[in-house]
Amino acid sequence: MNTTIPERLVSLRNEMGNKGLSACIIPTSDPHQSEYTAECWKFREYLSGFTGSAGTLVIGMDDAGLWVDSRYFLQAEAELKGSGITMYKSSLAETITPEAWIASKEYRSVGLDGALFSMKEVHYLTEYLNRNNIHIDATFEPYEAAWQDRPEFPKGEIYLFPEKFAGETVESKLERVRAELRKNGADAMPLAALDEIAWFFNLRGSDIEYNPVGVCFAFVDQTNAWIFTNPEKLTKETMDRLKAAGVLTAGYNDLPELLKKVKGERLLIDKTRINQKICSSIPAGNSVIEAASPVARMKALKNETEIAGFRNAMIKDGIALTRFWKELEEQLAKGDDTISEWTISERIAELRSQQGNYVSDSFGPIVSYNAHGAIVHYEVSPESAYPVRKNGILLADTGGQYFDGTTDITRTFSLYDETPARYKEDYTSLLKGVIALSTAVFPVGTRGAQLDVLARQYIWKRNINYLHGTGHGVGHFLNVHEGPQSVRMNENPVILEAGMTLTNEPAIYRTGEYGVRVENVMLVRNENTSEFGSYLCFEVLTLFPLDHKSIDLSMLSREEKVWVNAYHARVFEVLSPKLTGEEVAWLKGKTKKID
Amino acid sequence: MNTTIPERLVSLRNEMGNKGLSACIIPTSDPHQSEYTAECWKFREYLSGFTGSAGTLVIGMDDAGLWVDSRYFLQAEAELKGSGITMYKSSLAETITPEAWIASKEYRSVGLDGALFSMKEVHYLTEYLNRNNIHIDATFEPYEAAWQDRPEFPKGEIYLFPEKFAGETVESKLERVRAELRKNGADAMPLAALDEIAWFFNLRGSDIEYNPVGVCFAFVDQTNAWIFTNPEKLTKETMDRLKAAGVLTAGYNDLPELLKKVKGERLLIDKTRINQKICSSIPAGNSVIEAASPVARMKALKNETEIAGFRNAMIKDGIALTRFWKELEEQLAKGDDTISEWTISERIAELRSQQGNYVSDSFGPIVSYNAHGAIVHYEVSPESAYPVRKNGILLADTGGQYFDGTTDITRTFSLYDETPARYKEDYTSLLKGVIALSTAVFPVGTRGAQLDVLARQYIWKRNINYLHGTGHGVGHFLNVHEGPQSVRMNENPVILEAGMTLTNEPAIYRTGEYGVRVENVMLVRNENTSEFGSYLCFEVLTLFPLDHKSIDLSMLSREEKVWVNAYHARVFEVLSPKLTGEEVAWLKGKTKKID
Repeated sequence: MNTTIPERLVSLRNEMGNKGLSACIIPTSDPHQSEYTAECWKFREYLSGFTGSAGTLVIGMDDAGLWVDSRYFLQAEAELKGSGITMYKSSLAETITPEAWIASKEYRSVGLDGALFSMKEVHYLTEYLNRNNIHIDATFEPYEAAWQDRPEFPKGEIYLFPEKFAGETVESKLERVRAELRKNGADAMPLAALDEIAWFFNLRGSDIEYNPVGVCFAFVDQTNAWIFTNPEKLTKETMDRLKAAGVLTAGYNDLPELLKKVKGERLLIDKTRINQKICSSIPAGNSVIEAASPVARMKALKNETEIAGFRNAMIKDGIALTRFWKELEEQLAKGDDTISEWTISERIAELRSQQGNYVSDSFGPIVSYNAHGAIVHYEVSPESAYPVRKNGILLADTGGQYFDGTTDITRTFSLYDETPARYKEDYTSLLKGVIALSTAVFPVGTRGAQLDVLARQYIWKRNINYLHGTGHGVGHFLNVHEGPQSVRMNENPVILEAGMTLTNEPAIYRTGEYGVRVENVMLVRNENTSEFGSYLCFEVLTLFPLDHKSIDLSMLSREEKVWVNAYHARVFEVLSPKLTGEEVAWLKGKTKKID
Repeated sequence: MNTTIPERLVSLRNEMGNKGLSACIIPTSDPHQSEYTAECWKFREYLSGFTGSAGTLVIGMDDAGLWVDSRYFLQAEAELKGSGITMYKSSLAETITPEAWIASKEYRSVGLDGALFSMKEVHYLTEYLNRNNIHIDATFEPYEAAWQDRPEFPKGEIYLFPEKFAGETVESKLERVRAELRKNGADAMPLAALDEIAWFFNLRGSDIEYNPVGVCFAFVDQTNAWIFTNPEKLTKETMDRLKAAGVLTAGYNDLPELLKKVKGERLLIDKTRINQKICSSIPAGNSVIEAASPVARMKALKNETEIAGFRNAMIKDGIALTRFWKELEEQLAKGDDTISEWTISERIAELRSQQGNYVSDSFGPIVSYNAHGAIVHYEVSPESAYPVRKNGILLADTGGQYFDGTTDITRTFSLYDETPARYKEDYTSLLKGVIALSTAVFPVGTRGAQLDVLARQYIWKRNINYLHGTGHGVGHFLNVHEGPQSVRMNENPVILEAGMTLTNEPAIYRTGEYGVRVENVMLVRNENTSEFGSYLCFEVLTLFPLDHKSIDLSMLSREEKVWVNAYHARVFEVLSPKLTGEEVAWLKGKTKKID
């Protein structure tokens, strides 16, 4: 990369001029609507210098703006220095939207690459911009002209995920997906979401950091199925297994060609997941049924093998973190002055890697001490890392990818001899919310947004809130952020169903002081059926103690203490057979009864 | 009414034949989308014999169906006997919708009276039926041909509501509404919702039982305003006052005529509130801005005078109900065998009517003993009334219309010497929910659906649920059911704002045994502002004791007992100065501290 940001923008604007465009929109996504992408789609980062995981760049002929959410206000401001790009705070009501900004500048012709936007997004933008007499060109692909040394298409192998971990054959999944299509009045469906394809065809990959997916598309109809990817990514063994299940393979760019040949089919299209370029290749004469991808829900409902795998993965996480915490306490007690956020994040990953079937971390570790803890998505690096010493607050949000399952756990530790009262109040009011959500019982049909307040109620009473969700789905050896379910303040019409996984992670961020977050992964389970219907509940899957030193016992009710004691007893019971005698003795103390 | 239901259906089907229709849809509503209507719009009741307050009737040439919700399954089944009309349970997922039923019967041409459907409903039906190759005719008005002795247009006077109760002049409201229109990019707006018009122009009426509204339409633009109603309904004094504020009057049917003359205006249309007939009279060339009626929100945000009035009304309710409960206890102790659900409902109304500024009940009283309590909307009548004796459960859900405000209160009383344990468990788990919602603190921007679980959480843990909402808005000397705010399981995008009123009324219905419901009216208030934003809370407005005998003290936390004691102390403090010495002594006992 031998060019500066302003130079890169000159190249882009030249290409815009060649295409008769006065502005263009560069999103963060890839052709699969991924949250995290492979290097060859990090064009927004290349053009702006902003390295965050979300943001929309708009380049006009005379001006440029980058819209980022509250996680990235500080980082984007720093990274945009000297770029000539203005930062806009996208999460605030008073901030102009990118499309309104374009309209206000009177740019009359806007380009974007339809492959990087969902059909729904392009529909919305087209409608908005046309209403403002602005032309939209969704075929703007300026990479050749404006991206020097663009990284190559990812080369990672897409490999078979063994049925002993997946718990279901591709043949069985094909049968179920085809039945779901028919239930929706459809014959066939293209798929673009990488985790959906991975789950569906029992495949995994390594094209995106932390997410064990491979870059590909898929298509399924009532008799055939196709995987579209670079053929070098598939071994003969993999292709043979797929072929045996009736799954053919073709090149990464061949899906539109196949779609163009489809005739008289009823296609199920999830317009939030399929990009505009693919959608626009569907010929007239096929009826399009707009519906949520049935694969997203099927993937979210874990089978018994996957659930057993999650339980295994949680034990491994518990062992690794027990070793970490014990070691940290010993080091701090000895006055070790080499410990930092960075060494801790490295050490946790190392301890996880010693567990069976470990593959990688499941996301960039968030290990943050004191003030760094208040930065929601603080990404530790050797350069930014604070030293970690006694008398501070340490937050560790980490997770692992094991073949058995994916983990995501946050604990906040008091490293104080005398823990400050306000911090304990923060921690305990948060913990009360964790317990309230963990112990919820709710009728079939309940949505996550209905339960969210259970986690927030106690901190709301103290006039505190966090602006992220309380819970996200967790994939099974797949993306650590998985839909369609969620527990958050915003409405999400998806109902919670037995077999879904969800995190429970309320938080308090005291800017300049510390962050407090406690996060467990939970499983939705059937609870009971009465004359009033069927009820669901949660089982906490994560197995690791809460920090006694952070709890103000006077704030917990009798029932809450019973819950903490029962949880700690279970943690001890499950983990102790796998630990050394010394570790068991230490864990005994960490899980001792409170009263 | 000298015809039978089958005869009425013959007349209707003849008229359908004359108009070339093979089916028609008869809703419960009036041209104002009212929940309760004047007699002249009770065509569904006339045609079917079903007297409930909600339901959709579909008459086909060969078949007929009535769709009713769970409140009316038993009642509708009884009332439809011999009518040839089939009952469908509209609230169940497995029940066919009326429109799907029409399509399944292959009726090819469907009539309805567009005046009785919101524009949004007609949009939906048209889209659905056209997709199924069914023609829709929204001008079917078969009243002349098929409604013998149709009741007359309501004749009640529409009178001025004094500013000393309303707290704001019409002039001021006009200014604010016009500003809201401009904020929405609109110039003008038709209004059809009777309570919105009543609030806006400081008018009240008596056309609909329990709802102090008059039947009329309105229209407001940036310089003028009109009320459309039968001129005999307005006195000269009222017309003069309106004229002084720049409000003109015209005939009830003149709004479409006025709309037809509108040119180049930007009209704000709330398609959920304005009927199809009105919407279809808007000429092309006017731009229509679809938005929620700003008047609905303005009306929901009570001003200081209205809030003070609510507080007054609650005191009056508290006095009346204190007298009722004391008297009932004395009568039961004496073994009085003349008491019934009916005599109680009459007596409560009588005691309310002795209070100042009383106008009427605010809804049909629900006074239900034992098994009747499990019928959610049990309407007491002299014929159906159970005798009320000792050793039973009595539920009383009643309310009053006072010039100061509108009340709605439910209490459930144990009339047992030894209250059964399971009932106490039901009552107390419910009460815990009432307290949790009453004491909620929540950030600005919170929607009712987010808080609903607070009221349900404890009964959900016992696998119990109720299918109605937890809370509805309450009008100020207006409809006891008022939008747009609500607290319910279903998503409602309206946020809760300071000044809104809401009921808090969780319930348990034990079919064949009893019902338990506790209901207070609450006011949304500003609570506090912190670095994390501004927070709201509730103030309980209702002032009447809870039933000590129904509470299982072992189920309440320390905080919950503190809440009950504080509430009872306030009830005693506010009511006792208005009561006789004997009543004060009695109330002292009912509000004594629990521990």
